Amino acid sequence: MDLTKLSITQASGLLQKGDITSGELTDAHLEEISKLDPQLNAFITVTADVAKQQAKEADQILGRYRSSGGAKPGALCGIPIALKDLYETRGIRTTAGSTFFADFIPKANAKVVDKLFDAGAVLLGKLNMHEIALGVTTVNPHFGACRNPRSLDRIAGGSSGGSAAALVAGLCMGSLGSDTGGSIRIPASLCGCVGLKPTYGRVSVRGVIPLSWNLDHAGPMARNVMDAALLFQAIAGHDPLDPYSVDRPADDYCSSIAIGAKGLKIGWAKGEFFSEKTDPGVVQAVHEAARVFQNLGAHVFDVDFSDAREASGANGIMTVSDAAAFHEEGLKKHPGKFGKDVLERLQMGVAVTSTQYIKARRSQSILRHKFIRFFENYDLLLTPTTPVPAPLIVGPNAVEQASLLTRFTAPFNLTGLPAISIPCGFTTNSLPMGLQIIGPPWSEAKILRAAHAYERIAQ
Amino acid sequence: MDLTKLSITQASGLLQKGDITSGELTDAHLEEISKLDPQLNAFITVTADVAKQQAKEADQILGRYRSSGGAKPGALCGIPIALKDLYETRGIRTTAGSTFFADFIPKANAKVVDKLFDAGAVLLGKLNMHEIALGVTTVNPHFGACRNPRSLDRIAGGSSGGSAAALVAGLCMGSLGSDTGGSIRIPASLCGCVGLKPTYGRVSVRGVIPLSWNLDHAGPMARNVMDAALLFQAIAGHDPLDPYSVDRPADDYCSSIAIGAKGLKIGWAKGEFFSEKTDPGVVQAVHEAARVFQNLGAHVFDVDFSDAREASGANGIMTVSDAAAFHEEGLKKHPGKFGKDVLERLQMGVAVTSTQYIKARRSQSILRHKFIRFFENYDLLLTPTTPVPAPLIVGPNAVEQASLLTRFTAPFNLTGLPAISIPCGFTTNSLPMGLQIIGPPWSEAKILRAAHAYERIAQ
Repeated sequence: MDLTKLSITQASGLLQKGDITSGELTDAHLEEISKLDPQLNAFITVTADVAKQQAKEADQILGRYRSSGGAKPGALCGIPIALKDLYETRGIRTTAGSTFFADFIPKANAKVVDKLFDAGAVLLGKLNMHEIALGVTTVNPHFGACRNPRSLDRIAGGSSGGSAAALVAGLCMGSLGSDTGGSIRIPASLCGCVGLKPTYGRVSVRGVIPLSWNLDHAGPMARNVMDAALLFQAIAGHDPLDPYSVDRPADDYCSSIAIGAKGLKIGWAKGEFFSEKTDPGVVQAVHEAARVFQNLGAHVFDVDFSDAREASGANGIMTVSDAAAFHEEGLKKHPGKFGKDVLERLQMGVAVTSTQYIKARRSQSILRHKFIRFFENYDLLLTPTTPVPAPLIVGPNAVEQASLLTRFTAPFNLTGLPAISIPCGFTTNSLPMGLQIIGPPWSEAKILRAAHAYERIAQ
Repeated sequence: MDLTKLSITQASGLLQKGDITSGELTDAHLEEISKLDPQLNAFITVTADVAKQQAKEADQILGRYRSSGGAKPGALCGIPIALKDLYETRGIRTTAGSTFFADFIPKANAKVVDKLFDAGAVLLGKLNMHEIALGVTTVNPHFGACRNPRSLDRIAGGSSGGSAAALVAGLCMGSLGSDTGGSIRIPASLCGCVGLKPTYGRVSVRGVIPLSWNLDHAGPMARNVMDAALLFQAIAGHDPLDPYSVDRPADDYCSSIAIGAKGLKIGWAKGEFFSEKTDPGVVQAVHEAARVFQNLGAHVFDVDFSDAREASGANGIMTVSDAAAFHEEGLKKHPGKFGKDVLERLQMGVAVTSTQYIKARRSQSILRHKFIRFFENYDLLLTPTTPVPAPLIVGPNAVEQASLLTRFTAPFNLTGLPAISIPCGFTTNSLPMGLQIIGPPWSEAKILRAAHAYERIAQ
């Protein structure tokens, strides 16, 4: 049995029965990391000692449960995970992929890290990412390129590239990414795993180093939909100390995840915006996904959804200017510490006038309102996650290709709507493609349910 | 019987019994306007023909009700009102106190104007206001100074000065103002009437010429709390076509308004911010108001609430830059059409960088969150509405005094919390003072109830 290829549900069952220990599971992953990561470069920091200690504690909890009964430990107890390196971890450096934070040792965990630890998760390490989550090009100038495990000369995508690469390569069983313009969904799409960007305000961002206070979303990444739901269940909910957190109870995301897609009203975005720069293979894959949903008993309708274009633009303006505001001091005092492309984008942000910014915020309000009204007639919307599969790290059109990647994801950061990316087949080139499923605010349970139904057929 | 001094409740009772007609009530007000308004300058446009026609229609409805029964007309049926001149009115020019809009004849009514007309209200005219709702100084450069009916050499306050002046002088029975930094509550305080700024998103702003998309609130102004509640009930609610409107049903604001203040936990803001620049007479008046609430059975506690200082600053930055964004074209093409002080403030807005603006938005999120948490321990908060009574129109410290006026009101625009101003006695100089009562989001019913209880004792 290859312990690095199990689902969280499978591993959790084995742990609870005592067929394996968290120590064994953790060691298997640490071994895989030392074997594969020198090539992949998915990890910035491996926390072997922390992991072994946490695994030991999880094994004690599991052992007590088996010997004396009582409440069953949750599905994450003893499960080895890894975190994008902008989640603050007490006593463990948290770099945000940047030299500014290269020596930053947080005094406390991010709220959601505490939640995962409370659930018994085991931390293998901190994952590579784009510099401050903003880099467009393919190589982190400080920590090196994270490679795509499906094709090592290609990017893993960003900014949560380390998360997707580690999951797909079997270096961890679950991860958290963060998403300001697509940074969870894009690497999920390019590497071939699952990434959920929840509704704005659903998951605490307290202790997550910001890119944009206005657009950042924390969310789970996993190898399958149920695993993503388990992680999401553990981190969703109101955080009274996070000003952006919404005071609304989390739903139950797991218990009815398998009830299928029958009866759902699904819009399939066929407008020009979704095809003009999109790889025909990707268009075809989403077409086939729409057919799958039809076969599952959903009602599928062609929709235009062309407001996504304006939304993508406004999200871009806001991201760079929000980031420039957060990094104001660094930009003034030590601009040379930023990588070239990040510095350029931050300077674009500085140059945005308040009038331009305010107009982008105005667009945000109007488009959010329009998008929500769209979902008065549909349960869900299907789009490609990315217009193209993983670009080459170094290649003739690398930057141009990379700049296309946020096109379909950013509109849902701007508007705060929940969206998942799930694997949707492979190009003729054997590169993974992603299907994006979007819903109205707080519809994560429905999104996960549809994603789960599709995944079962597509596998 | 002086028909221009009745409350809406009294007038409505008389109308429904047939003791007076809306035609008589309307004529009495039109007469008062022609007698007093040449001095007060509360009206920019008087709509006598519209009023007479609407009064006729209201009298038909009231007549049918008396002769054949059926559903009782609402309390606003046949009641003469007037509107701040930034509420769009179909076929009636809507100037926003600005030469840019001097010939603007809207094709449709603002949503809330339609609501008032549906309720049977009669429109006497459009009311004077600060230029584009932004002017600080005391005289609208295009439409002249609106004078305070309590003391004609003093300002009525702004920006909804015409609304307060008209109410207090008996030129209309109810009005709508708008409030971006205090523009409903300040003139209510300075003239001695009631003004309610509701929760952000509670009242549609569709068809209200904007000052700041982010801070504008529409709300009622009246001569007493019950009248304000009746107007508020007519305009509150979700507007699916306004992107800033919140989809949440309105409460019943009138039926339990008279149950008193017993048991309410009330914070009385005594921090330095609320006293350092405040007229001692105003401090004393709020102190006495706190004692009144105690006598009414409320639990009153001294609180500091010093975050209001930062909130006031952030609101100022945002107001000028939001206004500059909305007036971008006018500023570029015809800057000379703005009055001197408005142009100066708009240019300050243009000069705000996106970084400064973003930091103000960040403060907004944090302070809103803090303020909401404050109300986990208190039902309501008491502050003065304005630190000083009405300044002179022309006087040694006129501008300096006027610039103090938004100090205590602006924090609740920034944070979107509902707040009312009600009369709170007179200075030794016989100038009205205002008490501000603030609550958490959606607590208008409680605010009105407390205001009503205080008003009964204080009268």
